[in-house]
Amino acid sequence: MTMTFLPFSQSCLDMPTLAGVRMATAKTGIRYKNRTDLLFLIFERAADVAGVFTRSRCPSAPVDHCRSILAHARARGVVVNSGNANAFTGKKGRTAVKLMSEAAATALSCPVNEIYLASTGVIGEPLDARELVHLFAPLSAKAKEDNWFEAAKAIMTTDTFAKITTCKVHLDGYEVTINGIAKGAGMIAPDMATMLSFIVTDAPVSAPILQEILEDGVGLSFNSITVDSDTSTSDTLLLFSTGSATKKGMPYLNVRSDPRYKTFAEAVKSLLLNLALQIVRDGEGARKLIEVHVTGAVSDVSAKKIAMSIANSPLVKTAVAGEDANWGRVVMAVGKAGEEADRDRLSIWFGSQRFAVDGERDSTYSETIASHYMRSSEIYIRADIGLGNGAAKVWTCDLTRDYVMINGDYRS
Amino acid sequence: MTMTFLPFSQSCLDMPTLAGVRMATAKTGIRYKNRTDLLFLIFERAADVAGVFTRSRCPSAPVDHCRSILAHARARGVVVNSGNANAFTGKKGRTAVKLMSEAAATALSCPVNEIYLASTGVIGEPLDARELVHLFAPLSAKAKEDNWFEAAKAIMTTDTFAKITTCKVHLDGYEVTINGIAKGAGMIAPDMATMLSFIVTDAPVSAPILQEILEDGVGLSFNSITVDSDTSTSDTLLLFSTGSATKKGMPYLNVRSDPRYKTFAEAVKSLLLNLALQIVRDGEGARKLIEVHVTGAVSDVSAKKIAMSIANSPLVKTAVAGEDANWGRVVMAVGKAGEEADRDRLSIWFGSQRFAVDGERDSTYSETIASHYMRSSEIYIRADIGLGNGAAKVWTCDLTRDYVMINGDYRS
Repeated sequence: MTMTFLPFSQSCLDMPTLAGVRMATAKTGIRYKNRTDLLFLIFERAADVAGVFTRSRCPSAPVDHCRSILAHARARGVVVNSGNANAFTGKKGRTAVKLMSEAAATALSCPVNEIYLASTGVIGEPLDARELVHLFAPLSAKAKEDNWFEAAKAIMTTDTFAKITTCKVHLDGYEVTINGIAKGAGMIAPDMATMLSFIVTDAPVSAPILQEILEDGVGLSFNSITVDSDTSTSDTLLLFSTGSATKKGMPYLNVRSDPRYKTFAEAVKSLLLNLALQIVRDGEGARKLIEVHVTGAVSDVSAKKIAMSIANSPLVKTAVAGEDANWGRVVMAVGKAGEEADRDRLSIWFGSQRFAVDGERDSTYSETIASHYMRSSEIYIRADIGLGNGAAKVWTCDLTRDYVMINGDYRS
Repeated sequence: MTMTFLPFSQSCLDMPTLAGVRMATAKTGIRYKNRTDLLFLIFERAADVAGVFTRSRCPSAPVDHCRSILAHARARGVVVNSGNANAFTGKKGRTAVKLMSEAAATALSCPVNEIYLASTGVIGEPLDARELVHLFAPLSAKAKEDNWFEAAKAIMTTDTFAKITTCKVHLDGYEVTINGIAKGAGMIAPDMATMLSFIVTDAPVSAPILQEILEDGVGLSFNSITVDSDTSTSDTLLLFSTGSATKKGMPYLNVRSDPRYKTFAEAVKSLLLNLALQIVRDGEGARKLIEVHVTGAVSDVSAKKIAMSIANSPLVKTAVAGEDANWGRVVMAVGKAGEEADRDRLSIWFGSQRFAVDGERDSTYSETIASHYMRSSEIYIRADIGLGNGAAKVWTCDLTRDYVMINGDYRS
């Protein structure tokens, strides 16, 4: 039994500052009252940037904007507002994006294609950019380096805690820092739980290498979590390098063959996974974090499909919510995944206890032990398909009455 | 606006008898107390039979059995038990199937490959066939033609009402009858809501033609409904022809070019849809029936994938439960389907009101009208993709706190 759950002490985390990046937040009142809902993140010099975005065929206007400027791969500012997703807002949405990026570019005296935008909140409601544009100059003036918690708080929607983490890496004698913030609450919900994450490092890494590392890392982190199988129109993950560690004499990392590549890439991956697990732990209405581990599939791709089938099954998730060791539903979810599977070779574990083996209930199965295990706040489910060496891990949360309540009552 | 919801008066339906088919039920006490949970359906002469089954890669032992005998395509008896699915029961499961089919075959003096079996209930729990086998002879003795409601009741699990329907068709001067029963409650739930349906006609139709009609009809009915996106290990749909109308002189229908084919096939299809809608209407915890109609997709196949993405979205379903006209979630579900879609050509209707057009909220949108509409017990959602002529209709139900409660607490 190998569980990936991380220690969870981010709330008392001592976030280091990163030279060359400052942040300021504001209360715009667009949707939320008495809380910040606008983040302006500023790079003193243009940072290298990499990004991955929602696969939705109906992306938001800010996602379209970010995608279009990513080829330039330089960022001076990031504007994030919560409360309104500026998605499915047609021409008005594109106008709002134009006004906001122009105003932020003016405030920073930079080109428009160095301003990244992300919006999260209600869908289909026009975002009145005129209420925001006058804020960028004063925010730029008051932005400060030691402001990571405020930044994480300003981008929350239905999140119950701010998602933030940091790590230090030693690369060939130089210590560099990677800071990250995120928001989630569901894999989605157009009007509540878009997944956004912004990661900044002072390590001097060129944009193409950042992009490679990000695309590689996202598969085992943000793309391995699910709250409700729904996908936002606005998911945005951006990774920036200020490169300020060059001031200490550190040379640029701009080829994959650089011996520092692997260490840095691993650090980014573990930071992505940390943020992704914070998101799933805070899934709407969630009380339990579930790790689904599929082994013995015919390939890793097949294993991931089966794992996602289990993690997205409402019946598996409600069983966990009800603290019911209902391994039969795991069989069902393996069966419906459409991947190669053989009932008579399938084994299933909950925690360290094997519940089923070779296509039937394990003779050592104990309802008492099972019931006791299901009271845990972190549930590990493993399905061994018995056909090959393919493996995958994904994470989800339980499906509770609170999820239904939150999502049934949100907009009205 | 073209809704398919059918009048719902099955409970006071006057079910006709069908010459050549008798039914008896029993209380076995395997799981349920004080109710029938075993159905023995008997054909006086071997009936022609067609079947479709779950696509699960981990099917139940009875499904394996039915599939293996379908090539013979003759049925003298059908045994259905509720309370235990005999799924994921390994060798014990196969032994139970053998014992039950042999006992039923002995009671009817027929070969074992003319006995069809279906089981629904808890998964992974061995089914003790020895408690059932002695019942077949007495059940055979007391079976009667006028027993359709009792048959429908005996196969229920968490269903809140028995699912039953009938229709009469005139084929070239002869009146024939088609009777059907079903059980559902979810598209699935290995231990509660497997979908089973048994349909019998006195029309003399050969097995290959029955199979063709069934496979054709299931796509637009049973395969167009979803309660929770989960797929049972045990789904079984069987269509039988007793052929007893030949006694009135009616000739066999055994080629597709027969002019009666279309009329008969249409009747079967509408009966399948009727039963499928009864199942979705009785989805676990459901309070509202939802019809999702996708038009303007690039193909019918694409339209159905988009429709299923909408119908399976927990966020769309919770919004309907909360009587919230949250069309933004429909946009999200269109976007995540992975099918061709263009945000700026998308239009969305709830009932007869268009909420969104050309990628933004309709200027005529009225929150008052929308809120009023959402109080209906039947909700029609249409998404026009604006790209082609592909169309599909699927049906689902809302996702309520009761679904979570039912599925979180069932087994323990």
